[in-house]
Amino acid sequence: MGKARRKNENGFLFEQVYDFILHRIERGEWQGNEKLPSIRQLSLEMKVHRLTVFKAFQLLKEQNKVYVVDKKGYYVQIGNASKEAESPPIVTAYPKENQLAAVHAAPVMYQFSQALIDPNLLPNHYLSDYVKKVFDLYPKVLATYATVEGDPELRESLAHYFMNIHKTYVTPENILITTGSQQAIHLIAQAFVKPRDTVLIERPAYSAAIDTFKNQGANIVAIDITEKGYDLDRIEDYMKTYKPRLFYLNPTFHNPTGYVVPVFQRKRLVELAEQHNCLLVEDDAYPDIYFEKQAVQPVYTFDTTGSVIYVRSFCKYVSPGLRVAAVLCPPALRPALITVKSLADNGSPLLNQKIFLHFFHSERMQQHFSKLRIALQIRKEIMEEELSETGWQWESPKGGLNLWVKLNDDVSGSDLLKKAIEQSVSFVPGVYFDPYGQDHSRVRLTYSYMNEVKIKEGIRKLVHISQSLNGKY
Amino acid sequence: MGKARRKNENGFLFEQVYDFILHRIERGEWQGNEKLPSIRQLSLEMKVHRLTVFKAFQLLKEQNKVYVVDKKGYYVQIGNASKEAESPPIVTAYPKENQLAAVHAAPVMYQFSQALIDPNLLPNHYLSDYVKKVFDLYPKVLATYATVEGDPELRESLAHYFMNIHKTYVTPENILITTGSQQAIHLIAQAFVKPRDTVLIERPAYSAAIDTFKNQGANIVAIDITEKGYDLDRIEDYMKTYKPRLFYLNPTFHNPTGYVVPVFQRKRLVELAEQHNCLLVEDDAYPDIYFEKQAVQPVYTFDTTGSVIYVRSFCKYVSPGLRVAAVLCPPALRPALITVKSLADNGSPLLNQKIFLHFFHSERMQQHFSKLRIALQIRKEIMEEELSETGWQWESPKGGLNLWVKLNDDVSGSDLLKKAIEQSVSFVPGVYFDPYGQDHSRVRLTYSYMNEVKIKEGIRKLVHISQSLNGKY
Repeated sequence: MGKARRKNENGFLFEQVYDFILHRIERGEWQGNEKLPSIRQLSLEMKVHRLTVFKAFQLLKEQNKVYVVDKKGYYVQIGNASKEAESPPIVTAYPKENQLAAVHAAPVMYQFSQALIDPNLLPNHYLSDYVKKVFDLYPKVLATYATVEGDPELRESLAHYFMNIHKTYVTPENILITTGSQQAIHLIAQAFVKPRDTVLIERPAYSAAIDTFKNQGANIVAIDITEKGYDLDRIEDYMKTYKPRLFYLNPTFHNPTGYVVPVFQRKRLVELAEQHNCLLVEDDAYPDIYFEKQAVQPVYTFDTTGSVIYVRSFCKYVSPGLRVAAVLCPPALRPALITVKSLADNGSPLLNQKIFLHFFHSERMQQHFSKLRIALQIRKEIMEEELSETGWQWESPKGGLNLWVKLNDDVSGSDLLKKAIEQSVSFVPGVYFDPYGQDHSRVRLTYSYMNEVKIKEGIRKLVHISQSLNGKY
Repeated sequence: MGKARRKNENGFLFEQVYDFILHRIERGEWQGNEKLPSIRQLSLEMKVHRLTVFKAFQLLKEQNKVYVVDKKGYYVQIGNASKEAESPPIVTAYPKENQLAAVHAAPVMYQFSQALIDPNLLPNHYLSDYVKKVFDLYPKVLATYATVEGDPELRESLAHYFMNIHKTYVTPENILITTGSQQAIHLIAQAFVKPRDTVLIERPAYSAAIDTFKNQGANIVAIDITEKGYDLDRIEDYMKTYKPRLFYLNPTFHNPTGYVVPVFQRKRLVELAEQHNCLLVEDDAYPDIYFEKQAVQPVYTFDTTGSVIYVRSFCKYVSPGLRVAAVLCPPALRPALITVKSLADNGSPLLNQKIFLHFFHSERMQQHFSKLRIALQIRKEIMEEELSETGWQWESPKGGLNLWVKLNDDVSGSDLLKKAIEQSVSFVPGVYFDPYGQDHSRVRLTYSYMNEVKIKEGIRKLVHISQSLNGKY
């Protein structure tokens, strides 16, 4: 049996390697007459035996996909790129670094990279009162585990909250508490995405979500999000062609662009999802951070058949340190999600849930939101003012924490970042948010973390650096 | 390209289904002349199209592995079980429920299932003092994220702690903070185990760890752990034959048995691991809960080549609610683990880490441990006394929280549990801890959660229920 097993395993690995190479040739990532990576490189990258790579190359040679140049290596045969040039590239997944985390880790004075709110704008003092209250109310809160789904009291309170603001029916049983929305996305990927499933994702999209689905082994197909929302015909087309397992979307004050998908598109999207058996995963992180008018109804409120999972992050603008998010999940999908959560960490810490619960109930929360909106709008406007002379382009966001800025033609976001970090300024190059890794012209500038003075100073520095790269100095 | 992709996907799924059926026939799980599950059942179970299952059956028929009985279905051809009857069964992985979580969820008066410490034995009052201290020291602790690796101050303090108690060299960079040891195991599985990798695991073993590796797609091979530790020749043999990616072990006050693997075996095990390129994942949850003498040196302290990841849970006997565990990780393995952690939740909550840090530094911690050991030893002895007349068998554990009990012949742990829960008593059937799901004769009884009176009452009830199942009443 040992032998049979190893034979099967070889077959499996062989197919992986073969597919890996062929996909890249077909989608034109490796082009005609281009030299392929060496057998040694690929065996290291894919963690397989060199012989397996060699065999894959041999078969591709027989099929006239590659050719050999003596003592040099393997080259792509011309004319093998995909005929369907119109179809979007499919990104096959192999474990890769979380790029965003690496940028955030850089210690700088002018931090426009991490989409967090300035701790000075958060209700720290109030929260520490609530912590004391929590210990009086639940003296053994640190001695017990929460249930895997999350604290029943918090879930009940959130169910009421959702019913109130969204005029929809939610029960505590539909709610799962997670350690931030990042964990929610990760659990959803593990519960519902198998390797080689297709996942639809916005372009641009939240970088750590892209990485999560890629690391789960998904093929990524991207759909543009613009000021006007989505091209729904294209979404329908992609759902038919690629049969995606799920569509990860962030339709309200979208990260990084700040766009809002209009209501008529939300309704139609739910119909499409239902029709094509595609799960919608709606990530809603900043609905309360609006500047003109309140956020429109979330997509999940139009769902009547259990096609939408709604991920609601709460802590970003109250207490990021608490790391509390809620997932609204249709009943049929609940068991898989609970199982994955129980294996992932056996439930989020109870203390954090109780602190959040008590603050969340308070009037101070609403007052905090009103103040926060004003403070952030001021910071946004200051950043926009500083950028107004640069020739850079952006749509003024209607909510959220970021400007999504198009640089001048001849500077790439990544090049700018390298120089900027040297001068203690950080931001996120737009290419990190591109599922296809192609758009180098954009950057995401977060206006919520630095105070007014720092925004002015830091953005001036950044503009200066960009101009020097442009050869103007 | 769309077509090519779908063809490849079909090929992949086909191979999965074919392997799934063939493995079960070869290992004798489906025996000669036994009816196979229907095409419909398998297509539902494996979430593939019926046609894919049909094709797999057709190929197996051609290969004379199965035969058809008209209008009845497919049957196993005789003589197809594996020749190597000596080799252990290999459990192929498909997502399954976390069984343990389901038992723990049952609301009962006599809780011998969850291996937690009675909240009344924990230093709740002291901890709430430390929480206030934390807010004085770090007024913005709730306004910021911890770094992905965990709070630097906590990691430094833990590095000193490990160096002190284990006389080994540890730097803060080697330490990753996780939300409990369950998360650590889950992250390790994601970072280092690919589908169809083999994972070596003790038999019996912590049920949620078994489930985690299975859900990651690993083939599980189990190695017995006994009072004397391991059969190292067998481990060597398995490492040669199955080339396991990692060995998950719990060698100190092992869960569920309480066994301690002797020092000479620890040393040899590290040599074997290094020789066969097998990662050792050492789970150490209760080293401070010993009754006779202190725990022996962990396996990782004998490692000189980066072959061991050490998972140290702290909170179980201080403050389970904080959910803080530490992972000591060789430098080469660190980047993969950090990436997975950043995608899993972007770092554990900072508040919890700071509270733990300050309590951990205190003298009260050591005083707490001494008291706790005495309290738990008393509870263990009371439970043993209550069981002494039953004819049930167990080795008195030298540490930890559980008795691993062999019932009388004619009652299975699962049957006993069903009746017990009706009468408000819970425990964990031993079969949950068996990677092969075969040993029905054992139960795990936790003595740490109930007080002395409840232990007496609950165990009497349990014995009574067992006797009634035996037909003695």
